[in-house]
Amino acid sequence: MTREEFSDAVELPVDTMAALERAAGSHRHEVLFSNRAFHIKQSAVRDVFDISVQPGLISLAGGSPYLRSLPLEELGRTAQRILAEHGLEALQYGGGQGMDELRRQACEVMAAEGILDADPADIVITTGSQSAQDVAAKVFCNPGDVILCEDPTYVGALNAFEAYEVDVRTVPMDGDGLIPEALEERIRQLRAEGKTIKLLYTIPSFNNPSGVTLTADRRRAVVEICRRNNILVLEDNPYGLLRFDGEPLAPMRAGNPQDVLYLGSFSKIFAPGVRLGWALIPRHLYRRFYLACEAVVLCPSPLTQMLVSAYLRDYDWMGHVRSSRTLYAGRCSAMLAALADQMPEGVTWTRPEGGFFIWVTLPEGVDTYPLLYKAIEAGTVFIPGAAFRPGEGSSNKLRLAFSAVSAEDIAEGVRRLAPILRAAVDAVKVG
Amino acid sequence: MTREEFSDAVELPVDTMAALERAAGSHRHEVLFSNRAFHIKQSAVRDVFDISVQPGLISLAGGSPYLRSLPLEELGRTAQRILAEHGLEALQYGGGQGMDELRRQACEVMAAEGILDADPADIVITTGSQSAQDVAAKVFCNPGDVILCEDPTYVGALNAFEAYEVDVRTVPMDGDGLIPEALEERIRQLRAEGKTIKLLYTIPSFNNPSGVTLTADRRRAVVEICRRNNILVLEDNPYGLLRFDGEPLAPMRAGNPQDVLYLGSFSKIFAPGVRLGWALIPRHLYRRFYLACEAVVLCPSPLTQMLVSAYLRDYDWMGHVRSSRTLYAGRCSAMLAALADQMPEGVTWTRPEGGFFIWVTLPEGVDTYPLLYKAIEAGTVFIPGAAFRPGEGSSNKLRLAFSAVSAEDIAEGVRRLAPILRAAVDAVKVG
Repeated sequence: MTREEFSDAVELPVDTMAALERAAGSHRHEVLFSNRAFHIKQSAVRDVFDISVQPGLISLAGGSPYLRSLPLEELGRTAQRILAEHGLEALQYGGGQGMDELRRQACEVMAAEGILDADPADIVITTGSQSAQDVAAKVFCNPGDVILCEDPTYVGALNAFEAYEVDVRTVPMDGDGLIPEALEERIRQLRAEGKTIKLLYTIPSFNNPSGVTLTADRRRAVVEICRRNNILVLEDNPYGLLRFDGEPLAPMRAGNPQDVLYLGSFSKIFAPGVRLGWALIPRHLYRRFYLACEAVVLCPSPLTQMLVSAYLRDYDWMGHVRSSRTLYAGRCSAMLAALADQMPEGVTWTRPEGGFFIWVTLPEGVDTYPLLYKAIEAGTVFIPGAAFRPGEGSSNKLRLAFSAVSAEDIAEGVRRLAPILRAAVDAVKVG
Repeated sequence: MTREEFSDAVELPVDTMAALERAAGSHRHEVLFSNRAFHIKQSAVRDVFDISVQPGLISLAGGSPYLRSLPLEELGRTAQRILAEHGLEALQYGGGQGMDELRRQACEVMAAEGILDADPADIVITTGSQSAQDVAAKVFCNPGDVILCEDPTYVGALNAFEAYEVDVRTVPMDGDGLIPEALEERIRQLRAEGKTIKLLYTIPSFNNPSGVTLTADRRRAVVEICRRNNILVLEDNPYGLLRFDGEPLAPMRAGNPQDVLYLGSFSKIFAPGVRLGWALIPRHLYRRFYLACEAVVLCPSPLTQMLVSAYLRDYDWMGHVRSSRTLYAGRCSAMLAALADQMPEGVTWTRPEGGFFIWVTLPEGVDTYPLLYKAIEAGTVFIPGAAFRPGEGSSNKLRLAFSAVSAEDIAEGVRRLAPILRAAVDAVKVG
């Protein structure tokens, strides 16, 4: 089952979706759609996000951060003060690049990750990291241009890129991340086909969905290959600080100010609900990137910017990151233990060093999409692997998220999932 | 002086902009930009927005709403309660279409404007109305497709559309708004050229920048012409409720659920800093529009959505709209009086029935762009008319905003502006 078929098949919260589509198909306005409109897909993650609110269901699907450890009462008082004392600024239009203080603080966050030379003047605050991915495709890609990405990669980036008719092509990875030799080979092959490669999109630390981390040596090698081939690296690093051992790997941007456009996010170190991230942009690319951001949203919300800024200034944000690491590490361990305990022979999985996700591989021949329905019946939910690859084709993989679920629920969710996977494995053996 | 030249010439807050551009021009990454990247322009309004923070300057440029009459202390307590009591929802990811309650409330706001049949299921909450304009161009326009718009029209929409290589073409207007016969003639002419026309973008009530309102008869005629020609109407109505006499004209969407995609905004009835608006979408177009919104931002901020929702639920928002009308009406009168008092012969201006703006016309042959520098020296600032038209070409018009300035400052600002305009008028007479 493909990504598109899944979207049509899954029962949507707006259950008239399919009917709407059929209605549009026969409407005289159908001819008004752009070519790119037909490349914009329903995200399987978002479908499952909606399903996951069913009572009693244990969701191993959504990559939501754990927020209960945030000091909500205190944050409420902070928001109260922002509105009472600086409401005219918080509620008015702001600058298109984002507030100076927050851009300075984004540099502090990046310094904690190992980027020591970031200049606030090279930063644009974006409406979540997603919006920066949208702008990157807009500013760099003509229809048919190639963005290289990991196989598997983040479904939201795939949706953003494909909306611009980008030809998204994958590069194989192993347990150490993107394989440099495979990257070089893919570049040669695509150039032989006459393709124009613009970007390499990568999540080097605790890749979503695989949990795999690109090693330090390979980070250098990959940037070097891209530099030689005049391909810009689009480094997406929302989980970088969430390395369980507390020692984040230096991002690819560290030491490479010219060849890496770095995307940061406040969603995982603070909260997604503020919808704020940032882009650190090579100076020679800054102006066009920034203008494109402004053309989409005018400015990021001053109110949520001021809240994030106050959080980074007045709270022990790094303490929260540290306790989040411990929490996520514990949940990851619980999931690994449950998998070891419950999974049938022939099923393997990754052992992430940070982030939110474990990537499970079933034997060749299993399609994980139809298993989702059975999982929902059994009271749990995951994301099928095909969601994380461009184009059509089924997948024998699936993503499990441990970030938002207690250790007990993780154990129970995996227990519910196990017989479904066992049956699928057995069916392939017999077949 | 053209829009583009102006952007390069004006001293920007990021004063290295021009240098950056030159650096990019010679960088090996220059070839990485998409074709559309070269269509993305600096907004003159945003340039002037930055200049306007100079102390002592009276800005008649920015269309910022007046926020001092909002109950900021109370709003602070509301935000405090949202975070303390519903923080886990406010700070987490939310649904891509926006929250149910806010979509229902957007229907109430539209009902106050005269749209009585809006269904929350047809609404997407957007990151400001700007984001909906971006998505409209993305979903409907291939490069070279035409969007028709008023001459003049909103600069932010021009920037959003041109970023998709849309061929934006203008339709003449008079004191009653878009001229239906001119619209028909323009459609015939463009079709004869072989152009594909997708949308008519219009701000029918108190057009930005002209302040002109499309009459009720013409609203019907324009929608009918578009329906006959299979052109979708994109109705942008941020100021609709701000009609000075308290009787908003029914939007074009009222009674036309199939042929009008309606854009609403919380910026002018509440506050721009929350960056929230909405789109009411013909049902047969909903799915693709919504998916495109999601591909850009995943979801609008639950935190700011909950604040707006609480504002519409717990506060006398219509009372605030009523007092805003009175305030803006008074400021508009003050500006009209100052213009009558100060403007030299040969200068004319519009008499808006609502909204934020007055549109000033100088004699043919005057270019208002260079006058901006003189105005800044004299301690005031406006937006030159060329900003509000697609493409190149100078303009003998300029926009004055009365929304964010006291009656005293309006009088003083116009007094500072008058000798500059007088000199320009005299120069043309002599020439």
